Amino acid sequence: MRLILVAGTTRTAEREGLSAAGATRDLLCHTPSADAEILTYGDTVRAPVTPVSPTGCPTPAAVTRAVRELLGFDATVVDGGLAEPTGAPTVSMGAAPGRDIGEADPVQTAPGAFAAARQFGRALPDEKVVVGETIPGGTTTAQAVLRALGEEWPTSSSLPENPVELKERVVEEAFASSDLEPGRAAHAPELAVRFVGDPVLAVASGLVAGALESETEVILGGGTQMLAVAALVRHAGVVGPLTLATTSYLADDVPELAAAAAAHDVNLVVTDPGFGGDGDGAGGVDPGPLSAYADGVAKEGAAMGGALHLAARAGRLDEVTTATLDVLARLRSDDGP
Amino acid sequence: MRLILVAGTTRTAEREGLSAAGATRDLLCHTPSADAEILTYGDTVRAPVTPVSPTGCPTPAAVTRAVRELLGFDATVVDGGLAEPTGAPTVSMGAAPGRDIGEADPVQTAPGAFAAARQFGRALPDEKVVVGETIPGGTTTAQAVLRALGEEWPTSSSLPENPVELKERVVEEAFASSDLEPGRAAHAPELAVRFVGDPVLAVASGLVAGALESETEVILGGGTQMLAVAALVRHAGVVGPLTLATTSYLADDVPELAAAAAAHDVNLVVTDPGFGGDGDGAGGVDPGPLSAYADGVAKEGAAMGGALHLAARAGRLDEVTTATLDVLARLRSDDGP
Repeated sequence: MRLILVAGTTRTAEREGLSAAGATRDLLCHTPSADAEILTYGDTVRAPVTPVSPTGCPTPAAVTRAVRELLGFDATVVDGGLAEPTGAPTVSMGAAPGRDIGEADPVQTAPGAFAAARQFGRALPDEKVVVGETIPGGTTTAQAVLRALGEEWPTSSSLPENPVELKERVVEEAFASSDLEPGRAAHAPELAVRFVGDPVLAVASGLVAGALESETEVILGGGTQMLAVAALVRHAGVVGPLTLATTSYLADDVPELAAAAAAHDVNLVVTDPGFGGDGDGAGGVDPGPLSAYADGVAKEGAAMGGALHLAARAGRLDEVTTATLDVLARLRSDDGP
Repeated sequence: MRLILVAGTTRTAEREGLSAAGATRDLLCHTPSADAEILTYGDTVRAPVTPVSPTGCPTPAAVTRAVRELLGFDATVVDGGLAEPTGAPTVSMGAAPGRDIGEADPVQTAPGAFAAARQFGRALPDEKVVVGETIPGGTTTAQAVLRALGEEWPTSSSLPENPVELKERVVEEAFASSDLEPGRAAHAPELAVRFVGDPVLAVASGLVAGALESETEVILGGGTQMLAVAALVRHAGVVGPLTLATTSYLADDVPELAAAAAAHDVNLVVTDPGFGGDGDGAGGVDPGPLSAYADGVAKEGAAMGGALHLAARAGRLDEVTTATLDVLARLRSDDGP
């Protein structure tokens, strides 16, 4: 079993009010690089910050790392267009950081990265992989990509109040600035990602397509961005069993998720880590800063839903809160004065 | 515990008769990229070949991978100047492939890579690391580097007959082509590596220096190249406990190794995997192609000695032969018609 985190950036995230995946807009660009380090080392190494939301909610990468420490699986980070240095080891697919989707051709590396990732996914010897993403602003690009494929599903948000009107304006701008019309990229996933998407979607969908083609079992760990990955894979004509493993916070936010998953022949699994102080994962422990998840902050990301699913299947969900608080304590011990 | 493999290249390896770290001279350049993949995935992913010596002796990376499958430790590949694509995730230190040390300034990236690796080593949160190398031609550059530091110790070879005269000529050429004289780089490790060394030595010594400075326990897994790393670290003025964990094949080849280790305040540990059909590691199993190690081929590399030391300490040395044969069987199953 290998957990693969596709980490990258889109400058779309720099728009005010679009993402909670960083304490400030200036720090958003470091989040994927830092998440990669936290997954790999349980600590930041080169990244200058530990990612938190503007209100201080810890990055979901801490949860994924905690489950990794509990279960001991391999983790691999794939570069889906990182913009800042990371001390985590990464595999290159030739993806560059994505430009704002208001530009005409924001992800020129998408077709090449999709092809390279597909070849990589085919060559992986693992029997099972969990694939997740970390890219601030990624739900907006995911919504645009779904529409380019001719699909209309709502996407979630790392903010407790989903900025749906703002996201809709950005998506409309993306279609206006490119030659693509909604639905015109059906069965052409590379085009959807290139003209209105982001490099993480290109790499993740290529990787999943290749893995399925070589009969590797794939669990998508995440929310509506990984749903967009599933849609891209199906539009590439690739069949095979797919599971979307997400958190209860994400599933609560998107009631249409079950129908969306079913529409793409995707099995949906929802896990509640109990960060609200109840639920299976609670284990009777004070969740501390993790309680923000129960208030709708972050919700999902960095393969968190996939990691929680693995913990639940191993019967160790009730240890996740304590293990995550332990990871956070180590992360914080560096930052103090 | 984390095993760190520094993987890179020097064009010095392209000289006829210098290295057994590839089936042919044309394939040598792929060996570090393939070793990185074998350590990470237990299989090649992007590399076009599984590394073997000209006589078919399997790469020591298969042994390190086998021990990793037995014990389950983390492994991280650091790019020490790779020349060919790898599907393994790698951390960049800004190292470029090394040029032939017959050129005037063959490793211009050495000072920068040494500094970046030192900072990375300091930031690593691990309590203990095992550091190894994979770079064909690396014993020749190691010998030149030791001489630049003012030290004269013999280096081993991946060939059963150490081409000492050829190596001596190449080392003399290296000093003739640069402004460096033997001993003039004492206490200036970056200069030794830059003018007569290779990028793997730069990265590995920086990494070990930084790790020791932040009180991480360091085990050097390898032979005389890792001895050169220890010398570079001491010449950088860095103290702290160092262990050199090597194979019995390497130790048999270099009787001076114990004295050389002691001269650098390095604890020497030698492990016999029993690939000759006897010894602690034998476990009564036919070693198959691994018996070439007992005939003096390869001997060490890709952190093999460090991995064997870990296996011995865990009381599982007698499982290593079978586990390695299992890795090799999986590697070979891809290559068939």
